[in-house]
Amino acid sequence: MTDVLIIGGAGMIGRKLAERLVKDGTVAGRKIARLTLQDIVEPTAPPGAAFATRAIAGDFSVPGVADTLVAGKPDIIFHLAAIVSGEAEADFDKGYRINLDGTRLLLDAIRKIGGGYKPRLVFTSSIAVFGAPFPDAIGDEFHLTPLTSYGTQKAIDELLLADYSRRGFLDGIGIRLPTICVRPGKPNKAASGFFSGIIREPLNGQEAILPVSRDVRHWHASPRAAVGFLLHAAGLDTAPLGARRTLTMPGLSVTVAEQIEALGRVAGQAAVKLIREEPDETIRGIVSGWARNFEPQRALELGFKPDASFDEIIRIYQEDELGR
Amino acid sequence: MTDVLIIGGAGMIGRKLAERLVKDGTVAGRKIARLTLQDIVEPTAPPGAAFATRAIAGDFSVPGVADTLVAGKPDIIFHLAAIVSGEAEADFDKGYRINLDGTRLLLDAIRKIGGGYKPRLVFTSSIAVFGAPFPDAIGDEFHLTPLTSYGTQKAIDELLLADYSRRGFLDGIGIRLPTICVRPGKPNKAASGFFSGIIREPLNGQEAILPVSRDVRHWHASPRAAVGFLLHAAGLDTAPLGARRTLTMPGLSVTVAEQIEALGRVAGQAAVKLIREEPDETIRGIVSGWARNFEPQRALELGFKPDASFDEIIRIYQEDELGR
Repeated sequence: MTDVLIIGGAGMIGRKLAERLVKDGTVAGRKIARLTLQDIVEPTAPPGAAFATRAIAGDFSVPGVADTLVAGKPDIIFHLAAIVSGEAEADFDKGYRINLDGTRLLLDAIRKIGGGYKPRLVFTSSIAVFGAPFPDAIGDEFHLTPLTSYGTQKAIDELLLADYSRRGFLDGIGIRLPTICVRPGKPNKAASGFFSGIIREPLNGQEAILPVSRDVRHWHASPRAAVGFLLHAAGLDTAPLGARRTLTMPGLSVTVAEQIEALGRVAGQAAVKLIREEPDETIRGIVSGWARNFEPQRALELGFKPDASFDEIIRIYQEDELGR
Repeated sequence: MTDVLIIGGAGMIGRKLAERLVKDGTVAGRKIARLTLQDIVEPTAPPGAAFATRAIAGDFSVPGVADTLVAGKPDIIFHLAAIVSGEAEADFDKGYRINLDGTRLLLDAIRKIGGGYKPRLVFTSSIAVFGAPFPDAIGDEFHLTPLTSYGTQKAIDELLLADYSRRGFLDGIGIRLPTICVRPGKPNKAASGFFSGIIREPLNGQEAILPVSRDVRHWHASPRAAVGFLLHAAGLDTAPLGARRTLTMPGLSVTVAEQIEALGRVAGQAAVKLIREEPDETIRGIVSGWARNFEPQRALELGFKPDASFDEIIRIYQEDELGR
């Protein structure tokens, strides 16, 4: 029997992870006894769980809150909570408070329990830890050169996770998620929003704006693949990781043109025609500094599974969000 | 006219830097108006300065202290203060408090002054940010994989320095110092102590213990070269650094056998005979995880100058410490 805590349980990935745990009833090969969801707004525990669920609203970056969260000694902790890139850039203090101090308070809360308590901590990092200039495909030994405060905070968290694991305070594993595509929900103003928008809006019969040229290449994973990464990380033997506790997850490197071709195959040319090109120099500039491709050799060897194709990424959206 | 602050001014490198500033009277091409030395114990300002000097004792990791230190808006800040590797490993909380929180308090103290204040901050990092396994010669784009809490804290500081510089709060440059050789003073129990001891003790007519085999290779710089790196960093145009603010300094990669050959050339075989081999498996194990060689291409291109040879490193010790 295992006790699971999700910090950041109200976010898109957190909700999908919780749904999957409720559906499976097990994680890392063990039956789930209890699932706790925490977020700044009260998360909704998915219905129909065969185990106890509870939802907690609170700010884990307030000293003492993390201690309360881990007081029950959860066996597996998924730490998904973060201030997103744009907000961490706009509000310097808030970004560091949540993304750095919050994570450190959590690590210290675990450490202070002691007495042999050593939970598995699965931490979501990001490809934002990398910044240009970089090679066409970034290997597992390329240095972390973030160009945003968000990426800096995630890179620092990776270092802390490794040191706390090395010291035996916890059993940490970090996973650098690709850009999640197709994100469900409404269009948003994030610079990366169009990667999902050009698929999602046409599938919903709406026009989508493409602000960059079709040869732009990026690194994608479906929400379902991301949940798969989290679950695989929760059950992985961490011994082969050694001191290098964070892994770049396997995504799919595709161009916008390849995304659109896949949309045509899956949903037809009527969908493709809903994409309207409207070049935006600002977005083009931001996107040009992003990583395009990776060689995530370690993660592949350790059994992390990418989406099979961008066609599959689109079908996952249809199945999971449109009920087809 | 320029106002200089050295944090960690009582340490070996801090003292030598202060002496050099007093001797030169200038730094980064400008006349020095004032030099402030700070450390946990009261530093001694070198005599004979043509400018105002002051010494401050205090713990810069206590909130408020860093604010006081930078209140006079020094133009150049050398941040050399740190808990050393062994102590940071033995006292987890103290290491993080000084090496991470202290540095961050300093960066934030600078940031909070605002109003266009943007000092040059020269930060001493360490090759301890790298950990095995690594290639025979570590290039400028190899990832940071520290295997100690000290190395972790230095790597985090490098990330903070880059982000605070990118945001325009200060003009930071980090330099990863090689192991300093020949360290003056008495033998100590640091695992790296023998690299200096096998030279220093024989030059002082005393026996030295060699705990590892002669094929052990390591990365060295003299104290004089280290001071040269600091001064060059203080005056460097940081624009070519881009977002990558920390540089591996050029050292000399030599084996213990090459060190001993140099000792023989500089001081004769009588000195060499004072080295006694006494294998120590613990030290051998620790040292085997250390970096042996680097390709510090960026630093060389930016004009940082290594020692010319290990013979020169020995002669620098004789000149600066033995008055020859």
